[in-house]
Amino acid sequence: MPDTEYSPSFTPVSEVGEFGLIDRLRAIVGEPADEAVLAGINDDAAVYRVGDGRVHVLTTDALIEDVHFSRAFTPMVHLGIKAVSVNVSDVAAMNALPRFAVIALGLPNSVSVEMIEAFYHGVQKAAAVYGLTILGGDTTAARRLTISVTVVGEAAEEEIVYRRGARPGDRLCVTGDLGAAYAGLQTLLDRHRALQQEGEGFQPDLEGFSYVIQRQLAPTARLDAVRAWQEAGVRPRALIDISDGLASEVHHLCRQSGCGALLYGAALPIDLETRTVADQLGRDVDTFALFGGEDYELLFALPEKALDKLDPDTYAVVGEVTTADEGVRIRQPEGEIFPLEALGFQHFGEDGVE
Amino acid sequence: MPDTEYSPSFTPVSEVGEFGLIDRLRAIVGEPADEAVLAGINDDAAVYRVGDGRVHVLTTDALIEDVHFSRAFTPMVHLGIKAVSVNVSDVAAMNALPRFAVIALGLPNSVSVEMIEAFYHGVQKAAAVYGLTILGGDTTAARRLTISVTVVGEAAEEEIVYRRGARPGDRLCVTGDLGAAYAGLQTLLDRHRALQQEGEGFQPDLEGFSYVIQRQLAPTARLDAVRAWQEAGVRPRALIDISDGLASEVHHLCRQSGCGALLYGAALPIDLETRTVADQLGRDVDTFALFGGEDYELLFALPEKALDKLDPDTYAVVGEVTTADEGVRIRQPEGEIFPLEALGFQHFGEDGVE
Repeated sequence: MPDTEYSPSFTPVSEVGEFGLIDRLRAIVGEPADEAVLAGINDDAAVYRVGDGRVHVLTTDALIEDVHFSRAFTPMVHLGIKAVSVNVSDVAAMNALPRFAVIALGLPNSVSVEMIEAFYHGVQKAAAVYGLTILGGDTTAARRLTISVTVVGEAAEEEIVYRRGARPGDRLCVTGDLGAAYAGLQTLLDRHRALQQEGEGFQPDLEGFSYVIQRQLAPTARLDAVRAWQEAGVRPRALIDISDGLASEVHHLCRQSGCGALLYGAALPIDLETRTVADQLGRDVDTFALFGGEDYELLFALPEKALDKLDPDTYAVVGEVTTADEGVRIRQPEGEIFPLEALGFQHFGEDGVE
Repeated sequence: MPDTEYSPSFTPVSEVGEFGLIDRLRAIVGEPADEAVLAGINDDAAVYRVGDGRVHVLTTDALIEDVHFSRAFTPMVHLGIKAVSVNVSDVAAMNALPRFAVIALGLPNSVSVEMIEAFYHGVQKAAAVYGLTILGGDTTAARRLTISVTVVGEAAEEEIVYRRGARPGDRLCVTGDLGAAYAGLQTLLDRHRALQQEGEGFQPDLEGFSYVIQRQLAPTARLDAVRAWQEAGVRPRALIDISDGLASEVHHLCRQSGCGALLYGAALPIDLETRTVADQLGRDVDTFALFGGEDYELLFALPEKALDKLDPDTYAVVGEVTTADEGVRIRQPEGEIFPLEALGFQHFGEDGVE
């Protein structure tokens, strides 16, 4: 039995941070002894060889009620779509395609058979879009609705892209736009508070916010980007999905690649609806784009000349890779350059670590 | 969007039962379109081909605080062992060996870095025993400690044993003994109550109960049986692990095999410590063995002549497979034969479905 078991010390996870915790756990688990393993605890998904030059990627993510979602404004069918999408996004972040999934559900008594069916309709809808086969799962009791999805993806070994391959001089690019899922969450929270204060007579105004709300409730994993890269014969040097906000993911990518980065604050792709929400709430929209989570877009590093092969409408150049000693910085639209902290997205209702 | 989303009906999961729920979800998910899939939602683990005549099995199980365990009397290192073992048991139940695992942790603020490290020491200890490589995972906030483990196992395609292969006339056998994990849980709950009533002066008497407590807190998956079968050149016709109690698992196996079963009530293997606990609590020990959960032994069906190849000390014959029309029955020690219900184990503190 390890010494830690009866140690009186209590270190909060927030004190060591996500990186610190992973380092400590990696020290316990050790390096993978299995020769088939190509990537373990350091990337969006684990990678191992399965023969015939193919590899599988394996990823698991949990959605927990009142931490990741509120049943008050999350339709079960959307929850099914989201639970699959967030895991498929991790597969896309390895430049792989999803194949199989299993789902473990923790069910409170307040969840009916009809609600579970609606959830599975969402799961199946997303699975069909992504070409994924749902293979089964596990149901158990729980105090709060708990959804753990595991996805197995596949690729040729040489197609896999890790977080670690970025080199100084590479362009940093993102698919889609940023901050919209966070704007959607703020919109839903704002209307929910108003509904509670004003009672049944209140008619929430969601007109004009369908994009940001859809981005929050039923996000789409960017498999289309992975497929487009493969068709164009382009392979990013480094790749990660944006689940906790761009700032946090740039730090992950730089740490794994042994590089730094300079982000262009004027180049962050932001949808008009996202700007409108930020304006209405009196918030800075760049904060949404940098630190808002759950966009499930892809951040990738490429040499500049490789960008010629990609449709310019499918990505935005948001910065460049630098040497490690420069750290992670952002150049504000006014030209000033600041260090960029790795502050990650804090989920709705969160009372612990992220 | 499916009709169910806005349906006013509320059917509790308990009304349709586990079988009913799985049937409904299978109707939504449909049959796997992927030709590599050999088993999906019907067995202990999903099975799919990975090339070179090999298959992978995939299983996921969650342990949720105050449903599956109480932190009041579960050391974190034991919890790590148990979280791995319950999943490896599902791999053993396919006659496969485990290879890779990922772990998703939901962490309340009250869980320290030291506690997570102790948990991972248990995980790593179990992984080393089972020859399993921990590849990573995910940590997130949660209101209660939530542990989801996913294990990938491997076997040659022809080695896989499903629940569905039993034939009338086969012997039904179990490894190890039954009811001990439930006896351990009752012992811990009993001492915990006494401790709360009598306060700090109370010294719980756990002397003589180390076996049942260990079976509850840190169970072992029966990979040793899988390895022994492979060495003896024996392959069971049908196989399932005993996680929810023998009665429930016999029903699963019979349902999948299209058979019935007759259990021999006088032949249930029960440890002396388990009997002592039942006696002290004034409970029927056969109830522990039939309906107590979490033993993680293996239940298997074999033609009688194949038993000659197995070490008789490693299993007990607990019944025989019959035709489906006879249903699942038990012959009491006194000779009377009764139908046996599929009542499953209800976890500690459970307030929902199992």
